[in-house]
Amino acid sequence: MTQTKVNVEKEFLEYVKKMVHVNEAIGLMYWDLRTGAPKKGVEQRSEVIGTLSSDVFAMSTSDEMKNFIAELSKPEVHDTLSDVTKKTLEEVKKDFERNAKIPPAEFKEYVILQSKAENVWEEAKKNSDFSLFQPYLEKLVEFNKKFIEYWGYEENKYNTLLDMYEPGVTVEILDETFSKLRDRIVPLLQKVTEAGQPETKFLFEHFPKDKQKEFSLHVLKDMGYDFDSGRLDETVHPFAIGLNPGDVRVTTKYMENDFRTAVFGTIHEGGHALYEQNISEELVGTPLCSGTSMGIHESQSLFWENFVGRHFGFWKNHYSTLKSVSGSQFHGVELEDFYRSINVVEPSLIRIEADEMTYPLHVIVRYEIEKGLFNDEIEVKDLPRIWNEKMQEYIGVTPKNDAEGVLQDVHWSGGSFGYFPSYALGYIYAAQLKDAMVKDIPDFDSLVESGNLIPIKEWLTKNVHQYGKMKKPIEILKDVTGEGLNPDHLIAYFEKKYSDIYRLNG
Amino acid sequence: MTQTKVNVEKEFLEYVKKMVHVNEAIGLMYWDLRTGAPKKGVEQRSEVIGTLSSDVFAMSTSDEMKNFIAELSKPEVHDTLSDVTKKTLEEVKKDFERNAKIPPAEFKEYVILQSKAENVWEEAKKNSDFSLFQPYLEKLVEFNKKFIEYWGYEENKYNTLLDMYEPGVTVEILDETFSKLRDRIVPLLQKVTEAGQPETKFLFEHFPKDKQKEFSLHVLKDMGYDFDSGRLDETVHPFAIGLNPGDVRVTTKYMENDFRTAVFGTIHEGGHALYEQNISEELVGTPLCSGTSMGIHESQSLFWENFVGRHFGFWKNHYSTLKSVSGSQFHGVELEDFYRSINVVEPSLIRIEADEMTYPLHVIVRYEIEKGLFNDEIEVKDLPRIWNEKMQEYIGVTPKNDAEGVLQDVHWSGGSFGYFPSYALGYIYAAQLKDAMVKDIPDFDSLVESGNLIPIKEWLTKNVHQYGKMKKPIEILKDVTGEGLNPDHLIAYFEKKYSDIYRLNG
Repeated sequence: MTQTKVNVEKEFLEYVKKMVHVNEAIGLMYWDLRTGAPKKGVEQRSEVIGTLSSDVFAMSTSDEMKNFIAELSKPEVHDTLSDVTKKTLEEVKKDFERNAKIPPAEFKEYVILQSKAENVWEEAKKNSDFSLFQPYLEKLVEFNKKFIEYWGYEENKYNTLLDMYEPGVTVEILDETFSKLRDRIVPLLQKVTEAGQPETKFLFEHFPKDKQKEFSLHVLKDMGYDFDSGRLDETVHPFAIGLNPGDVRVTTKYMENDFRTAVFGTIHEGGHALYEQNISEELVGTPLCSGTSMGIHESQSLFWENFVGRHFGFWKNHYSTLKSVSGSQFHGVELEDFYRSINVVEPSLIRIEADEMTYPLHVIVRYEIEKGLFNDEIEVKDLPRIWNEKMQEYIGVTPKNDAEGVLQDVHWSGGSFGYFPSYALGYIYAAQLKDAMVKDIPDFDSLVESGNLIPIKEWLTKNVHQYGKMKKPIEILKDVTGEGLNPDHLIAYFEKKYSDIYRLNG
Repeated sequence: MTQTKVNVEKEFLEYVKKMVHVNEAIGLMYWDLRTGAPKKGVEQRSEVIGTLSSDVFAMSTSDEMKNFIAELSKPEVHDTLSDVTKKTLEEVKKDFERNAKIPPAEFKEYVILQSKAENVWEEAKKNSDFSLFQPYLEKLVEFNKKFIEYWGYEENKYNTLLDMYEPGVTVEILDETFSKLRDRIVPLLQKVTEAGQPETKFLFEHFPKDKQKEFSLHVLKDMGYDFDSGRLDETVHPFAIGLNPGDVRVTTKYMENDFRTAVFGTIHEGGHALYEQNISEELVGTPLCSGTSMGIHESQSLFWENFVGRHFGFWKNHYSTLKSVSGSQFHGVELEDFYRSINVVEPSLIRIEADEMTYPLHVIVRYEIEKGLFNDEIEVKDLPRIWNEKMQEYIGVTPKNDAEGVLQDVHWSGGSFGYFPSYALGYIYAAQLKDAMVKDIPDFDSLVESGNLIPIKEWLTKNVHQYGKMKKPIEILKDVTGEGLNPDHLIAYFEKKYSDIYRLNG
């Protein structure tokens, strides 16, 4: 019996490792496509990615996988498994059940629809015409509703979608959290808008690309990013990708008339990368060797981007370097004014260009719409109108057209519903982690000011990074902060920070 | 019947395409490892490559493959196959038979030996001590002798190894060809050595890396290398790699005290790349979509490196650009003197640093040794002595130690016997192609001089590139030149060129 168990466990881990290996190859091809693959090879490369992805999908739903799950789930066997194997089993079982419940013909039809819908969305956005995209979006929503029926749901249909990206987070939790957040941000935003904006025009002078790169590399190094386990490349839509903890790549984009894109983008992606670089070695070769959820991942990137990169002390330390690297751009601009300029809050239409305070409002708009769609309270055809109304209500701006409104994001065209909330959760988690960190590291501010960011990285590794998927998001949160999801920390941070910057109490 | 045949043919091509796809992913990982993969990720990446390679190997020897081969080889089915399918079948069948004949346990033992032997060779070379490597080399030779017994051989055991790299080439052919070549080069080399060397010291001044890159890109473009189907990167040991015809990458190495490494290296790898970029679209997704043999591949790189890149007319066109790019390096150096300096012939010890005339002699030394080993005329233990004797006899130099003698090349440590002759064949083929080309393009010299290299590329595409593996090396040669392997063309080229450069008739 024990002999059998040992063999099955070993064979299972070997089987799973093969899937991880194929995924690593796919990851490298993805990185390559986005950082310099020759354009005439792209079509063929996409086919290769398709072949390898089908392979992994087939392995995840095979009879062999079914047998592994059945065998290792027997209580007398399960009890003897290592913790890593148990968690691995849990992961693959979740995937297996999700994938196995959808009839293959329907899944195939859905995959074809996804790829068509992305093309149509591009066209619709280009022409700013939602009606082109509408029938595709309707079908995508219908498919997902059917899938929810296959998968089953608790309390609310939308919960099943949320669970795919942020296990444990529900509509009940989000309704409470987001409404609190919204109710506190909206009036604060109102005050800020009335207070008058700081000067920002010095931000937009010509800052040469190679100089931006020099500064970006400098900051990544300070953050404790390990260049022996990664590299920095240029791309159009920046991302970080963990191929394995020894190879976690950051990409960035250099805009010569706005250095903020590269600098804050690099810090943001660097935060994602630190997560992937510092996952425990014992998880390598298992599906646990990656961030535990989209939200926790985003908490890491936002922690670095906002709590470090937009911290006054950070610029007290780095401003002179930025000045000398840039040439004469910031000549005569005081540190204080520079700091205010990079923390401008301004209602705007496009999510990915939003500042940290209005950003969660953009997410809440999408959350409410998605929830409505899956609870049959909103119809796809009404989306442009509903979108614009909510934007006006929460952010105080109304899109002039669909391209800068409901069509702005790619996510829905790929059938990704339930994903958007993770972005706002990242902000909330980050603020909670920050307050917990300060209890352990009371001199946080002076560390940032002195440029010694390593203790910060180490705290995050100890409390978050190392676990990979061994802990669920909510476990991480509870173990570190002693509480569940709580937007108060983020709200308090906004109220303090922006009262100072906008001199609301002055 | 026809229905069945169509299905089997289609399924077979799908099966083979999957192998091609996995190989493309492996190729990209290989390129990445050699152009900038983070060092801490290398071990894990090697495992991923191992997993994918085992996968392809398993597919090439599977029962499914066996059934495809059996089914498609039935005369009534075979007659109905397309030419591409027939050739594809021939390729995979050859692999299948070779791999299936070796008992798996022995093959595994051999793979482990290979990987150990490479490490030991490195150590032995570092310490310049052949005795460390000797027992491993003995085992590698023994294994290959056993494999030859499994595979069978005609006339000469070494033929079986030669056939793996250069199908159709035999000991009988090489003995005749190489002895003729050697007998004509050795006395020519003697005369050259006595004639006194041209000035070369201006070659070794500081030439900044980015300027070398600029010039290298310029030359690649002139050659007709398609940058939408490729890119140029830096590496330690330069290579070109064809992932698919739309993605063929060149790598080079910049030595700031010797620009020749990058310039001639880029032209050389560019020649390989042009081959892979211009294979017919209809072969994409089959194992035929790559160069037909090592020798023909090398003929393409050497054609460009020597017949174009070391041509007087090429520099008549490009010397002023090189001068302006380099700054003041060639100030006061006449074109004629520059041309002579880059065509210096000099007996030397290291194959990869040899000039075009002595290079084939380095290969002949290795050929004679390999042939002797596999015909039981030479023992591994005597290699250092035999090596040194042959080097003295053919090239007129004697290594001071094993590192610059018998241990210099990596090939044997990986069990690659029968590969070296391809390098010399590349020279011979290239000279034959050149003489054939001149019949079609009588103004070859003026094209090179005018910088219009496209007709040259197009001629090579029409006569060589497009076919991929649809034609065997000897077929290409016969179809283009009307004759078989013939070293006279290369000899005539050497005699003419070096009589001029060294003013032997002056």
